[in-house]
Amino acid sequence: MKILAFDTSTEYCSTALCHDGGIVRREICAERRHSELLLPMIQDALAEAGLQLSDLDGLAFGAGPGSFTGLRIACGVAQGLALASGLPVIGISTLEAIAQQNTHDKIVVAIDARMSEIYHAAYIRQNGFWKVVSEPALFQPRHAPALPGAGWMACGSGFNVYAEQLQAIYRDSLMEIRGDQYPHAQEIAQLAAVRSLDEFCTDPAQAVPVYIRNKVALKESER
Amino acid sequence: MKILAFDTSTEYCSTALCHDGGIVRREICAERRHSELLLPMIQDALAEAGLQLSDLDGLAFGAGPGSFTGLRIACGVAQGLALASGLPVIGISTLEAIAQQNTHDKIVVAIDARMSEIYHAAYIRQNGFWKVVSEPALFQPRHAPALPGAGWMACGSGFNVYAEQLQAIYRDSLMEIRGDQYPHAQEIAQLAAVRSLDEFCTDPAQAVPVYIRNKVALKESER
Repeated sequence: MKILAFDTSTEYCSTALCHDGGIVRREICAERRHSELLLPMIQDALAEAGLQLSDLDGLAFGAGPGSFTGLRIACGVAQGLALASGLPVIGISTLEAIAQQNTHDKIVVAIDARMSEIYHAAYIRQNGFWKVVSEPALFQPRHAPALPGAGWMACGSGFNVYAEQLQAIYRDSLMEIRGDQYPHAQEIAQLAAVRSLDEFCTDPAQAVPVYIRNKVALKESER
Repeated sequence: MKILAFDTSTEYCSTALCHDGGIVRREICAERRHSELLLPMIQDALAEAGLQLSDLDGLAFGAGPGSFTGLRIACGVAQGLALASGLPVIGISTLEAIAQQNTHDKIVVAIDARMSEIYHAAYIRQNGFWKVVSEPALFQPRHAPALPGAGWMACGSGFNVYAEQLQAIYRDSLMEIRGDQYPHAQEIAQLAAVRSLDEFCTDPAQAVPVYIRNKVALKESER
């Protein structure tokens, strides 16, 4: 599949264009300039691959969790591209995108959600796909859920920022910690490319950011 | 000219589609749901007008000043639509869009920029166009620049939030105050429709938000 992917969920801005001949990647530390940088990076990627949007099979973007503003930039560009091109579009979890960077098959991901909280998920790879063992959710680090068994690899900024608290919970579960991993468009493209096109949104209005903080707040207020 | 315009610079989300038969408008209080609401509103507007994107002459969006996240949502959708459709795109000042709501010819606009500051500009209408008398800039309300002569109409939330300070500065200049006015896509479409297409960006990467706060901070640090 030919997939154009992009991510603006962190301080980095990245694009990846998977095509039959390989992958064209771009990444830059954007700080607060994602709106200025993303479109030229997409244009460059298409030009380097010698492709038009109409040559693609689909679009993918980092749908979160991540920076509130950043998620909405990538989503806006994805929605606009999809509406005008007719291409199907898919939002890919940034937690799964972090897991995908690793060859290990049991991954727990935690990213710093500020406000003394983490976005957390755990995955096991089965037949090349990530099976969700612990659903993406917001936790105080000391309330991060237990993992079944040992031999887990831990990834994401949460394991740097809340190293002590998370290592206390997972001390018997972890074999390796990579607190420096963050999402890239490359793995978003890879995860999209192995999905069935049936999982993509044909209505671009359905392509929206994941906003875990709101959902959790709602659940708490419903109690 | 057939122009699709949209604005997400405030807590409202609005779209306006100017076509030969008139204008199709939508507006909703979106709070933090602009990313979910904007695209369906654009799709509805096109459907109601019986138009495709390819029937349009151009795209316009509220480029700021305004909500940091909101500006980037509209910009992202505008960039994506423009890249995929080839339509020219223009960012319209939200301060000018507020001025355009009024039939009066001398307008000072101030919107609340939080952090005890206002975004401020002043315009005089000449031959149907707004001539800038005081460039869009960020001020502490008590430092808002003086206006030439009397008979000015004052618009925008700044005149509600900082009523006392601004009225002290402008007490001899103002004839009317409308602190409840905020930008709508309708006036963004009108302002775009009277522009020459030469003023639109043919490269969608050039369509970026106005971010006055950064510029002013830069100027101050250069002193």
